[in-house]
Amino acid sequence: MTATADESMSQASTRSRVAAPDEGIGLDELALAARNHGMPLEAMRYDLTPAGLHYLLVHYDIPGIDAISWRLHVDGMVANPLSLSLDEIRARPPVTIPVTIECAGNGRARLNPRPVSQPWLVEAVGTAAWTGIPLAQLLRAAGLDESGVEVVFTGADHGVERGVEQDYQRALPLAEALREDALLAYEMNGQPLPVQHGFPLRLVIPGWYGMAQVKWLERITVQGEAFDGFQNSVAYRVKAEAEEPGEPVTRIRPRALMIPPGHPDFMSRARFVTVGTHDLVGRAWSGLAPVTKVEFSADAGVTWQDAKLEPPLGRWAWCRWSAQWTVTEPGRYELLARATDASGAVQPVEQPWNLQGMANNMTQRVTVIAFSPPIMTSRS
Amino acid sequence: MTATADESMSQASTRSRVAAPDEGIGLDELALAARNHGMPLEAMRYDLTPAGLHYLLVHYDIPGIDAISWRLHVDGMVANPLSLSLDEIRARPPVTIPVTIECAGNGRARLNPRPVSQPWLVEAVGTAAWTGIPLAQLLRAAGLDESGVEVVFTGADHGVERGVEQDYQRALPLAEALREDALLAYEMNGQPLPVQHGFPLRLVIPGWYGMAQVKWLERITVQGEAFDGFQNSVAYRVKAEAEEPGEPVTRIRPRALMIPPGHPDFMSRARFVTVGTHDLVGRAWSGLAPVTKVEFSADAGVTWQDAKLEPPLGRWAWCRWSAQWTVTEPGRYELLARATDASGAVQPVEQPWNLQGMANNMTQRVTVIAFSPPIMTSRS
Repeated sequence: MTATADESMSQASTRSRVAAPDEGIGLDELALAARNHGMPLEAMRYDLTPAGLHYLLVHYDIPGIDAISWRLHVDGMVANPLSLSLDEIRARPPVTIPVTIECAGNGRARLNPRPVSQPWLVEAVGTAAWTGIPLAQLLRAAGLDESGVEVVFTGADHGVERGVEQDYQRALPLAEALREDALLAYEMNGQPLPVQHGFPLRLVIPGWYGMAQVKWLERITVQGEAFDGFQNSVAYRVKAEAEEPGEPVTRIRPRALMIPPGHPDFMSRARFVTVGTHDLVGRAWSGLAPVTKVEFSADAGVTWQDAKLEPPLGRWAWCRWSAQWTVTEPGRYELLARATDASGAVQPVEQPWNLQGMANNMTQRVTVIAFSPPIMTSRS
Repeated sequence: MTATADESMSQASTRSRVAAPDEGIGLDELALAARNHGMPLEAMRYDLTPAGLHYLLVHYDIPGIDAISWRLHVDGMVANPLSLSLDEIRARPPVTIPVTIECAGNGRARLNPRPVSQPWLVEAVGTAAWTGIPLAQLLRAAGLDESGVEVVFTGADHGVERGVEQDYQRALPLAEALREDALLAYEMNGQPLPVQHGFPLRLVIPGWYGMAQVKWLERITVQGEAFDGFQNSVAYRVKAEAEEPGEPVTRIRPRALMIPPGHPDFMSRARFVTVGTHDLVGRAWSGLAPVTKVEFSADAGVTWQDAKLEPPLGRWAWCRWSAQWTVTEPGRYELLARATDASGAVQPVEQPWNLQGMANNMTQRVTVIAFSPPIMTSRS
């Protein structure tokens, strides 16, 4: 008995689904969590996240690209289509911008019921200094027809998603692609892009969630109508029902995260501190508008106090924030931190639900156990 | 009401447990899977795993160490205790060795019932070229008393585990510590150690599972009796019942992994290939003895064929293997690969169970869907 393509496909590449109310994380979600990874929160001590600690989401496989034979193609509504080598791209004047990138699915695994996909908790974020060339300059060098509507970016990563075989593709409105700070990046923190972050070339479009930052870039196509590819029209949409078109996922909503204070328990990741005063440190960012306020609560959100906010390395990088927390009584505490930006957007304490778990920015909660010193007897 | 240390501790740092028969992965296991990560299997295309793709397990938090004030202390049964700066260590003649390191818990999440801990599937492995100085030379420079029994390695990572507060500590028998190829490593693949891999200095003891490769090393202590610390006496033991002492986890059992062929589905990670002949490529390793054979099965383990095995970069690095798989009929296939080493050890097709999910080396299974070409219609 031979299976038809459609029969086998429908078994191995299914529609998206939502977990049952008490359903634990499945082996399929775990397989994604074991490959991809978040940023350990203590890495927020660094202004720039070291490459191996920056969050990573790969839809299919990391492609093995030969940088010698690789070319970037620029085509569609351009007078002079281009085919450029990496050396030709690197020969143009470089620009470096620090940019915080967050996965659009960050926080998904905290939704109830849980959309079944990459099961992020809170740590799908990172900040790097990206070096490359301005996208707008290259489009204009190709003789851009400014009546174009969208620019489609095609990566070398190839796979199947909900029954649709595809190269990874995302499009931006032309006006976004022409922003001065939209980059074609070939370096991350001063080193050639790591293979998992898009070697040899990726798009960096500051302020947008990670799905827009196309890695392993091979082709840039200007077209006269809106792009209807899977990642724009199906996957990255905020919606409540499968049948509705929903709203596109675009820019990063505000979020603050703290470095959990004290020392962790291995399995629960709960934190242990002594009673006394502790410095809380974290980072905050928003792709909508600059962060204007970070607040912190030690009583599960009943009262809030303003944290000290430092200027970011650049408009698109996260801000460092700090606060002092004085705990006088031993016991169990829940620490919260939330950000507000200049657009007035503020993080919700309870997350509104959406079918695909996109653009969640629920306030972080960190469980801390405070003791009177000596904290505990060490066995060592 | 104030909690006592013991009360709060017992809530937040519990005994190890085994999941119920149908219990999905919990949020505690997911929190570990989101921080730590395996090696995406396609990274086996590289002889040496790039740092950000090498598997990573951090018991507590990644410490932030100031390399200027940091010192390595060598003490205990030595005539001349040492306190060395990083520069003093780097001034000694360096050695570079390629070593494959695997987590002792690799495969744990496939056990049934599942021990609740870091939920690895198969990818907790990586190979790097480690550069550093021979441990034995340093111990002898300190005036080692050769009647010592064990050498205790203390890292800067600090936390709580099953109610025990601790610096991460592991010990080796003195004879292992005196092996020529036991290194104190300060470089990984020619670069300073990444912070998550133990900057500024770590132990590399080739052939042993990862728990022995102490990171963020601060102290080396020679002692006259067996070490009874948590990680040696409690955590890393193969046992069936909580009350029994069990056997220590030591050297890496043989394992072969293949790069899953074709293209993946995003959610199921099932693979799609066309009917025809496919090159299968993977890696195999063992800490017990050199790998002597890799076999591959395309019929769920009924029949096996020998793969071609290439010599490794060094005794302690994985071997590349390859095989050709000809698939003539469309349908669903399970591909298996297993390794045998010169000690006669071979991977089991069904995994023997143990309480903590240690030293598992069950044969990998990869689900592949074969189609007649054209494989599918692309939407792009």
